[in-house]
Amino acid sequence: MEDFLVKAKASAQIIATMESAKKSRILNEMADALISQSSTIETENTKDMQAGKENGLDSALLDRLLLDEGRIAAMAQSLREIAQLTEPVGRVLEGWVNADNLRIEKVSVPIGVIGVIYESRPNVTSDVGALCFKSGNVAILKGGKEAEYSNQIIAKVLQDVLERNDLPREIISLLPDSSREGVSRLIKMDQYVDLIVPRGGEGLIRYISQNASVPVVKHDKGLCHTYIHQDANLEQAIAIAINAKCQRPGVCNAMETLLVDRAIAAEALPRLYTAFSTEETEMRGDPEVQEIIEVELATMEDFDTEYLANILSIKVVEGLDEAIGHIAKYGSGHSEAIITENYTAAEAFLDRVDAACVYVNASTRFTDGGAFGFGAEVGISTNKLHARGPMGINELTTYKYKIYGHGQIRG
Amino acid sequence: MEDFLVKAKASAQIIATMESAKKSRILNEMADALISQSSTIETENTKDMQAGKENGLDSALLDRLLLDEGRIAAMAQSLREIAQLTEPVGRVLEGWVNADNLRIEKVSVPIGVIGVIYESRPNVTSDVGALCFKSGNVAILKGGKEAEYSNQIIAKVLQDVLERNDLPREIISLLPDSSREGVSRLIKMDQYVDLIVPRGGEGLIRYISQNASVPVVKHDKGLCHTYIHQDANLEQAIAIAINAKCQRPGVCNAMETLLVDRAIAAEALPRLYTAFSTEETEMRGDPEVQEIIEVELATMEDFDTEYLANILSIKVVEGLDEAIGHIAKYGSGHSEAIITENYTAAEAFLDRVDAACVYVNASTRFTDGGAFGFGAEVGISTNKLHARGPMGINELTTYKYKIYGHGQIRG
Repeated sequence: MEDFLVKAKASAQIIATMESAKKSRILNEMADALISQSSTIETENTKDMQAGKENGLDSALLDRLLLDEGRIAAMAQSLREIAQLTEPVGRVLEGWVNADNLRIEKVSVPIGVIGVIYESRPNVTSDVGALCFKSGNVAILKGGKEAEYSNQIIAKVLQDVLERNDLPREIISLLPDSSREGVSRLIKMDQYVDLIVPRGGEGLIRYISQNASVPVVKHDKGLCHTYIHQDANLEQAIAIAINAKCQRPGVCNAMETLLVDRAIAAEALPRLYTAFSTEETEMRGDPEVQEIIEVELATMEDFDTEYLANILSIKVVEGLDEAIGHIAKYGSGHSEAIITENYTAAEAFLDRVDAACVYVNASTRFTDGGAFGFGAEVGISTNKLHARGPMGINELTTYKYKIYGHGQIRG
Repeated sequence: MEDFLVKAKASAQIIATMESAKKSRILNEMADALISQSSTIETENTKDMQAGKENGLDSALLDRLLLDEGRIAAMAQSLREIAQLTEPVGRVLEGWVNADNLRIEKVSVPIGVIGVIYESRPNVTSDVGALCFKSGNVAILKGGKEAEYSNQIIAKVLQDVLERNDLPREIISLLPDSSREGVSRLIKMDQYVDLIVPRGGEGLIRYISQNASVPVVKHDKGLCHTYIHQDANLEQAIAIAINAKCQRPGVCNAMETLLVDRAIAAEALPRLYTAFSTEETEMRGDPEVQEIIEVELATMEDFDTEYLANILSIKVVEGLDEAIGHIAKYGSGHSEAIITENYTAAEAFLDRVDAACVYVNASTRFTDGGAFGFGAEVGISTNKLHARGPMGINELTTYKYKIYGHGQIRG
């Protein structure tokens, strides 16, 4: 492993200063290669699919694993789109002249060597590899073992393109030792690796956060709330709540808990009940909710659970303070929304709720690199530092200060 | 400890949204309190000084520890200057309207609870406490045990001002258990603490980086180089090299190694020798240097050492590539300088050297929050992520996205 990491770190110097047009050209070549190697990729993917069936993966997981011609074409298209993104390296973030007449520029630069740990979908291998490449970083990828054949062939296709361009294969590679021990070693190698991005289950993320000496930007759970304030436009509130919960319940920016002001509960809850019933949502409510609509009891554990399913906890609150208090206690700092026409309540919610994304009168489902306009995304960070919320290509850069003098010495 | 951290985290919500004018007023009250409590502070400091003498601290350390009326006045003045800094919270860093017509604002917000671990000088207690306060964060401070009485009284003076303003004392406090075990526990408490900033010896920083589950922004060593390119203005080069090494050899932005192009070595080295001899610098050189000037041998270990003393390693290099290669191998990513009149060499050095601060024709001694114009500084980060280089008050903030909708749902 250490030999590999030495090469990875050395490769970082090559990719860090590569000119933008060359990076884009190579990414387009990679897209072409995925298409031309389509049938080989499908063959390897079949092995993963077969093993998955034998190991009893459910149909949803098998579907995520499957690569067919259409999906490989989509992967190629994604690389072409990443090639077109605005160059993330060399942006002048700030610039000024100091009291000593030094010209100081704060400029975006690649981070270096980035380890990304993820599960299931094999398109992540090409997407994240390409995002790291475009941003001048070396990518060390560790996918799920259920997608091992697929990830191997995808990485090989990309690496062959690197080699044809006289570049080291280590610029985009799979972690050579993909066992749990391999991951344990990788996250301690801070002399070679600059950042670890874990995307996956809570257990994995917890393990990595607790044990890494390499800095971690984690993609943890989203326990998101929507708060219907007494001055909400109720029709709008219902539409937003339905969208936040039901449009795609299995994702981290979906709502898990709905908070409703007491002053409007008697009017709002029956209408919400009708709307969610149409969507076949399983509703659970606190005792006060149960007095108004017929739902199961929501326990404290419910309020603390990211269902990732079409289940909703509902709670009646006295007002803004109780709503914000509940969110502070149970929220995961991902995405939180208030629905209100009241200016002061909206501003207070935006200021006081501590989360990556805070919304007024919109669905939490918009927390996403694509929706934000970042193009392809690395994920949605639940870190507070470095990258918070949707993590696009710019979040794969850090900065340096370039300082232009003409003989200045310190007095 | 856990009780204390629960209170600290709860206090974070209070300070996070405090209005700017109130924070400034309280900081000025703290400055007044330091002055009015001056004699009590001196009395407590005397206990530290006495213990220091008994424990055989050298005169430099004792001098760093000493608080007299003048130094206490300087601490108060520093608080007044921090009070005057531009408000770091609520800056709109970016803003746009997305394809769904959501108005998205990226806004600076406090980080939350910050633990700062430092050594020796007790003025750090008030400085860092005030920087955290101004940026809306809770500060948990752990100073050196040699300054324990001084730190206790300074913290008490600041906390009494908090209490008079009906604010929790936990907003600025010393770590209750200041033992090594206390620190070990603190750095694992990621459910309460958002950031650890260690300033101190390599051992301490290594220990914290390896063991923390809380994110760390470290203030590690500076092994800084100055590279005299063959097209340098030699007189300027010598003045810069002398300043970088000798103006204050004990700090992290001082030069440790001087690299000189072979093409000008025969002319440059004797002149450098004369200049550094006047400054009583102990020079060590590689064999090629030794052929030109009479100095001790610089070993590989020398090139890998942050002397923090008036000692200089010198090496002859073939040109830009070898200089950049040497810096990549031995540099600590802190501050690196090239002295040249050659445009292409200057640009290549700035682009290819991976360090927080890269200079053309100036002394590395300018890597400093004050020199950069940031006002008081937390320190100089050797992290690549979140904060790199001089860490001012803005680096004590993170960001959130505020998203303003009018009923948008995801399609």
